[in-house]
Amino acid sequence: MERINAAIERILPLSDASQIAASARQQQLTKPPGSLGRLEEIATWLAGVRAVARPRVQRPSLLLAAADHGIAGRGVSAYPAEVTGQMVRNFAAGGAAATVLARGYGASVTIVDAGVATTLDDVDGIIRRPAGPGTRDLSVTAAMDRRQAEACLETGIDLVTEIAANGHDLIALGEMGIGNSTSAAALTAAFTGLRPGSVTGRGTGVSDERFLHKVALIERAVAFHRPDPIDPVGVLAALGGFEIAVLAGAIIGGAARRLPILLDGFITSAAALVAVALAPESGAYLLAAHRSTEIGHAAALDHLGLAPLLDLDLRLGEGSGALLALPIVAAAAALLDEMATFAEAGVSGADDELVGSD
Amino acid sequence: MERINAAIERILPLSDASQIAASARQQQLTKPPGSLGRLEEIATWLAGVRAVARPRVQRPSLLLAAADHGIAGRGVSAYPAEVTGQMVRNFAAGGAAATVLARGYGASVTIVDAGVATTLDDVDGIIRRPAGPGTRDLSVTAAMDRRQAEACLETGIDLVTEIAANGHDLIALGEMGIGNSTSAAALTAAFTGLRPGSVTGRGTGVSDERFLHKVALIERAVAFHRPDPIDPVGVLAALGGFEIAVLAGAIIGGAARRLPILLDGFITSAAALVAVALAPESGAYLLAAHRSTEIGHAAALDHLGLAPLLDLDLRLGEGSGALLALPIVAAAAALLDEMATFAEAGVSGADDELVGSD
Repeated sequence: MERINAAIERILPLSDASQIAASARQQQLTKPPGSLGRLEEIATWLAGVRAVARPRVQRPSLLLAAADHGIAGRGVSAYPAEVTGQMVRNFAAGGAAATVLARGYGASVTIVDAGVATTLDDVDGIIRRPAGPGTRDLSVTAAMDRRQAEACLETGIDLVTEIAANGHDLIALGEMGIGNSTSAAALTAAFTGLRPGSVTGRGTGVSDERFLHKVALIERAVAFHRPDPIDPVGVLAALGGFEIAVLAGAIIGGAARRLPILLDGFITSAAALVAVALAPESGAYLLAAHRSTEIGHAAALDHLGLAPLLDLDLRLGEGSGALLALPIVAAAAALLDEMATFAEAGVSGADDELVGSD
Repeated sequence: MERINAAIERILPLSDASQIAASARQQQLTKPPGSLGRLEEIATWLAGVRAVARPRVQRPSLLLAAADHGIAGRGVSAYPAEVTGQMVRNFAAGGAAATVLARGYGASVTIVDAGVATTLDDVDGIIRRPAGPGTRDLSVTAAMDRRQAEACLETGIDLVTEIAANGHDLIALGEMGIGNSTSAAALTAAFTGLRPGSVTGRGTGVSDERFLHKVALIERAVAFHRPDPIDPVGVLAALGGFEIAVLAGAIIGGAARRLPILLDGFITSAAALVAVALAPESGAYLLAAHRSTEIGHAAALDHLGLAPLLDLDLRLGEGSGALLALPIVAAAAALLDEMATFAEAGVSGADDELVGSD
């Protein structure tokens, strides 16, 4: 826990001074005050995150963590477990949704094997940090040891620290792991206190029968492990998974390096629940890119106090929703930086009646 | 009306065959069926618009029409009328929100003076097609002659025909005109049959007093002109404005050239009401980029049968909302075109239980 605690201690609040400067500039730009809505809010937030008055997002990076899940053997997913490794190959080859989006939007991609069961030795372009050959079955035992959970958190911190050192100015989070919506639902139940039945969805799209089976397994797991949010690493170790742990570490590491962090869907929001339980100040560095159709996602975002930017009926994961929000986040910063002021453009302001009325 | 009618007759329904082909390909791509939500719907729509199975959006273009409004003299806006011309200069110089966004997203911009009251003779980079020095005051007389309305519609058709001929593959619409939310509200009331009070908003942000004054003026105008949706050109001539007429023509011209058309906010939706009244089949070529905070926008979109893609509390206009949706629309097409199929990537499909269950 030493390196984890060191990263947590490094996390500072957002910069008030930079937010005030950004907000003051917004009032001078050639538009009615507040007319750019959430973009103004995002630009001000970016200023606070980066501690600069005119932040930019020009070198975004996607961290895409993959791992397998013992619970997948119980038929909680519509897809067989080997799809995790197959999709990692698809990421490396650039054929998956997230990699198509990253290419189109100019985001670099770091693919990390956090514990995929099938061999990936022959795959180029991925980082191998497996904590094991997939987690154990969380419905009957702890998904991982506490030591493995800590190792994954450290992996996430290390990867993001390197990404920050390479000059990237935003982190988008993505994941792949057949069975991981089961871990995410269990984590969401554990950290929000809600019943598993109210935070469990159909993941990649299972039948009614499999859905009820999935809920029952999560209820059993929560009753068995009695996860206590006071001990976030214990909750994480009990419920999994490796990729979620890496992403929780990435959030802590990103906040420690003053990087804005774009959450994707339900799985990454579960990672955020872990991160914020460990490091409450990391929550200020998060932006919810979209609202997934997965039912537990809204509950997790409510708990995190985050309002999603997009609502496009997505339920893919991989970071696809985070990437789709990226051009809007980058635009918010570009508008703050590049728009002319009323004075520069020689544009008249609002009538006196109205100055400051918005 | 001859050229207008010729363009209207050119408008064909979306291609069923291309939509079927796009939809079939979606089912083969490496993702759970339907998991890309609205992006799948957009990609299929683009296929129908362009009449190709794998459409792309790689050369988008913003058409930004500006004009002045006689009604502005009655204090319906928070800003003085000279701001219209000042903002056209700001567009040409690249300092306005829409031009910052267009630059960032690689969209070309066509700025057209459809009838700005102040001189723009010294401004480079704009197209001069003024139908007059601003419209007349619609609360006491017709905003323009029928001949002017037709000339503006033809201008819009001509401009988009040229944009299409230059190889652009999408049109985003934007506008600038102090006072134009008054014309848009009057048009929305005329075409939807709703009361002016329920479709009139605060535009750039007026006080309660000015807002009530604005509603009263629109009520008076509607009572005076008795606009009849059976005669769309007559409604347009009565209520204005020049830039709205150009954009209505652009929609007709864009649909005639099989271009996808991104609406922006309330003003462009009023242009769409005119276009669809003239050419019902043009409605199939429209995508509502976002939902503005302007109250009449939702009513207009409902009437058009369009569901907005984004909801970012925008109320700026200029095409800013249309441009913010652009990377998502382009991504929808890129995903359909570039993603690997299950067969290509060697990824297992869903278990038999589930094939076709989504």
